[in-house]
Amino acid sequence: MKKNLLVAQSGGPTAAINATLAGIIEAAVQAECIDTVYGAFNGIKGILEERFINLSKTINDADKLDMLSRTPAAALGSCRFKLNDIEKDDSQYKQIIEIFNKHNIGYFIYIGGNDSMDTVLKISEYCKKCSIDDIKVMGAPKTIDNDLCGIDHCPGFGSAAKYIATVFSELERESVVYDAKNVIVVEMMGRHAGWLTAAAALSQNVNGKVPYLIYLEERVFDIDRFIEDVKEKLETNTAVMVAVSEGVHDADGRFICEQGQGEVEKDVFGHSKLTGTGKILEEAIRAKIGCKVRSIELNLLQRCAAHVMSKTDIEESKNLGAFAVQYATEGVSGKMSSLVRKSSNPYEVEYTSVDISQVANHEKKVPTDWINEAGNGVNEKMLEYLKPLVQGELSSVYVDGVPQYVVLK
Amino acid sequence: MKKNLLVAQSGGPTAAINATLAGIIEAAVQAECIDTVYGAFNGIKGILEERFINLSKTINDADKLDMLSRTPAAALGSCRFKLNDIEKDDSQYKQIIEIFNKHNIGYFIYIGGNDSMDTVLKISEYCKKCSIDDIKVMGAPKTIDNDLCGIDHCPGFGSAAKYIATVFSELERESVVYDAKNVIVVEMMGRHAGWLTAAAALSQNVNGKVPYLIYLEERVFDIDRFIEDVKEKLETNTAVMVAVSEGVHDADGRFICEQGQGEVEKDVFGHSKLTGTGKILEEAIRAKIGCKVRSIELNLLQRCAAHVMSKTDIEESKNLGAFAVQYATEGVSGKMSSLVRKSSNPYEVEYTSVDISQVANHEKKVPTDWINEAGNGVNEKMLEYLKPLVQGELSSVYVDGVPQYVVLK
Repeated sequence: MKKNLLVAQSGGPTAAINATLAGIIEAAVQAECIDTVYGAFNGIKGILEERFINLSKTINDADKLDMLSRTPAAALGSCRFKLNDIEKDDSQYKQIIEIFNKHNIGYFIYIGGNDSMDTVLKISEYCKKCSIDDIKVMGAPKTIDNDLCGIDHCPGFGSAAKYIATVFSELERESVVYDAKNVIVVEMMGRHAGWLTAAAALSQNVNGKVPYLIYLEERVFDIDRFIEDVKEKLETNTAVMVAVSEGVHDADGRFICEQGQGEVEKDVFGHSKLTGTGKILEEAIRAKIGCKVRSIELNLLQRCAAHVMSKTDIEESKNLGAFAVQYATEGVSGKMSSLVRKSSNPYEVEYTSVDISQVANHEKKVPTDWINEAGNGVNEKMLEYLKPLVQGELSSVYVDGVPQYVVLK
Repeated sequence: MKKNLLVAQSGGPTAAINATLAGIIEAAVQAECIDTVYGAFNGIKGILEERFINLSKTINDADKLDMLSRTPAAALGSCRFKLNDIEKDDSQYKQIIEIFNKHNIGYFIYIGGNDSMDTVLKISEYCKKCSIDDIKVMGAPKTIDNDLCGIDHCPGFGSAAKYIATVFSELERESVVYDAKNVIVVEMMGRHAGWLTAAAALSQNVNGKVPYLIYLEERVFDIDRFIEDVKEKLETNTAVMVAVSEGVHDADGRFICEQGQGEVEKDVFGHSKLTGTGKILEEAIRAKIGCKVRSIELNLLQRCAAHVMSKTDIEESKNLGAFAVQYATEGVSGKMSSLVRKSSNPYEVEYTSVDISQVANHEKKVPTDWINEAGNGVNEKMLEYLKPLVQGELSSVYVDGVPQYVVLK
C-alpha cells in the first residue's frame, strides 16, 4: 500500500533550505511507494496543529521546483520547539503518531540543524520503543553555522560563505578608496563555531593587498591583543579588514558582546542571542587607536542572501533532500542524509546517511590546527576545505527587476 | 594638436562609478583628438600631488574594460576635498592649470556627486576668468543618494535601489518564517533625501502580503506616531517591514539618531554623519510594543553591492561617461553629462548636458506628492519612477567562486 510523505522545516532560515525541500518533493513524487507529499507549516509545531499543505498539488512542475529551490528563508515556515522528554511525558509523541496515522504518513522528513535533529531522534526513538515500524523518520541537514557533526559541511553554509566572501571583497575595495587609515569590522553569525567568520578568508588578497584579521570563537579573544594586532597592521597599510564571530569571548568565557548589553538573552534551547560584538570592537578602535572605523553586522542578511548563492551548495542541498527520501523508502529510519568528501581537488563527495544520535545536540567546531598560531587568521587547510563549497553562481529568479519567490504561507 | 584626457573620481563609492570610468576610457581611446587617457588617484587631491596613471596602457582591452565596469567602490580612489574660494586664494587653481599644462591635458572629467561638481564649477570658472580656452572641464554624475539636480536619476542609484529591493524581499521572507509577531527595521543611507529608502517599495507585496512602513527624510518623523503605525499593522499581520532613512528628524529638525549618540559628527562639507536610527527604533519598539524586533543597518553594503547591480544603471553609467568625453571633445566646458527621461513605459532616456551651476551644491529631494498622506509610504508615482531603473541583472566577474576586480591602486 502506498503511503504519504510529510516534510517540515525547522531552525534558522537559510538560502538553501528550500532547495532541500525541492529535492524532497521531486524525489517523493517520483517514488513508487509514495502517494501524496504533504508539508507541515512551522515544523513540529504545525504538525501538532495539523496545519498541512498538499505539496504534490502546489509545486507541480519543474519551473515551480526551480523557483522554490532559489527561494530564501523557509517556505513552510519554521519553529524553535523542543519536544518533551519521552520518559517524563509522551503525550506529544502519541499525538504526533495519531496525526501521522490519520494522514497515512509513512515517511517523515525533518529539515534542520542540530536542535531539529533532536526532534528526529526523539520521534524515531519513540517509534522504536513502541515498535511502530511503518513510519520512517529521516533528518535532512541544514544550517549556515556549519556546526553539524556527521557531515563534511552543511547545506546553506556554502551560500552563506560565498555571500560573506563577496561582501568582504566589496568592502575591501571600499576600504582603500580614501587615503586615510581605516578599519572595517564585520561581525558574522555562528553561536559557538567560527565557520562563517572563517569564510572571509576566501576573499583575502584575491583583490589587492589589504590585510585581514580573522577571529573565531574557537580561540580566546583578548581585546588588548586585538588592538595591538590592528595597530601593527595599520603601521604598513592604509586599511585593515576585521572579521569577527558574534560569539568571541574572553578567557573567562564571557562574551565580548556582553560588555555592551549586560546579560545576553537565551532561546528555548538555551543558546545565547549574541549581537553587538562588532560595535564594541569599533568603539575600542576609536578610543584606543583613533583612526576612522566602521562596524557592520551582517545580521539576517547573511543567512537569506538568495541573490548570491553557491551553485555547489544548492545542488548538494537538493541532493541531500532526494537522498533522505530514497533512504526512507528503502526502509531506513532514525538517520540523517549526509555527505562525505572524497577529495577537495578535484572536488568529489559521496552521499550517505548517519545515525541521528551522532548529530542531534552535538556541535562541530573549527579544528584548532586550521587557525594560525596568533589566533587572528586561518591557514591553507581551512581554504582547501572552503574553496569547493563556494564554486558556481546561482541567484533568485528576477521578474521585472526584483526577485520572485515561491510563497506557500 | 592632440591633447590628453585626465579623469578622476570623487565623493562616496558606488557600484557604478567604475562603469562611468570605463565609458570614459572607451570613448576617449576612440576619440581622434585625444592622445593618452590619464587617471588621477584620489580625485583633486591626487591631481595636486600629480599622482597619475596611464589608463590607455593599463585598461587596454575589452575584457579589462568590462571587468572595470563591474568593479565596485572607486578604482582610482576618491577624496573629500573642498577647493579654496577663488576670490580669496587662487593658488590651488594656478597649480592645477600648471599641472594640466605640464601633462598636456586638454580634457578633464570629474566623476562625482554634488560636492564634486563644486570642484568642476570652480575649475571651469577659473578657466573662464583667466581665458583658458584649451582645457575643457566636464562633470560626470554619480551618487547612490540620487540627490543630484539637473538629471532624472543618478548613476549608482539604480544598482543601490536594486540591492535594497532585493534585501527587503529576502528579509520579508525571513520575517514570516516563525509565527511570532515581529518587526524588521532596516536603515538606509541618504543624508537629506529619502530616495534609497523609497526603493524598499519595489519589493513591497511582490512576494506575500507583509506590510511595509517607509519613512523618508522629506517628512517630519514622530516616534510616537511611528509606534502607533507599527502597532496598527501588527494587529492584523504577523510581521512588519520598516524602511527608514538615516536622516529622519523630528519637527525641530533634530535627527532621531542624535537621541542615541549626542551631537553628530560632520565632514568637511558640513554634512552630518548619521547612523544608529534603526537601533533607536528597534529599542523603542522593544520598550513600547514588546514584540520580537531586529534592526539592520545596510551601512556600506548598499553602496558597493556589485554582486547585484542593475544592468540599466551600469549601461547608463557607461554612457554618461562616454557622453562627457563627446561633449568635451566638441568644445563644451563647465557642464555635466546628464540624462532626461522621455518616457517611463516604455522606458526611454535622452542624453544631454546641463550647466554645472545647476548641479553643484544643490540637492534634489523626493517630491512631496510621491509620499502618502500618512508619511509612512510612497505611492504609484514613486514606483513608476523607480521601476525602470532596476531592470536587468548584472554582477561582478566571479573567478574560482569569488568576485575579481580591476585593481589600480
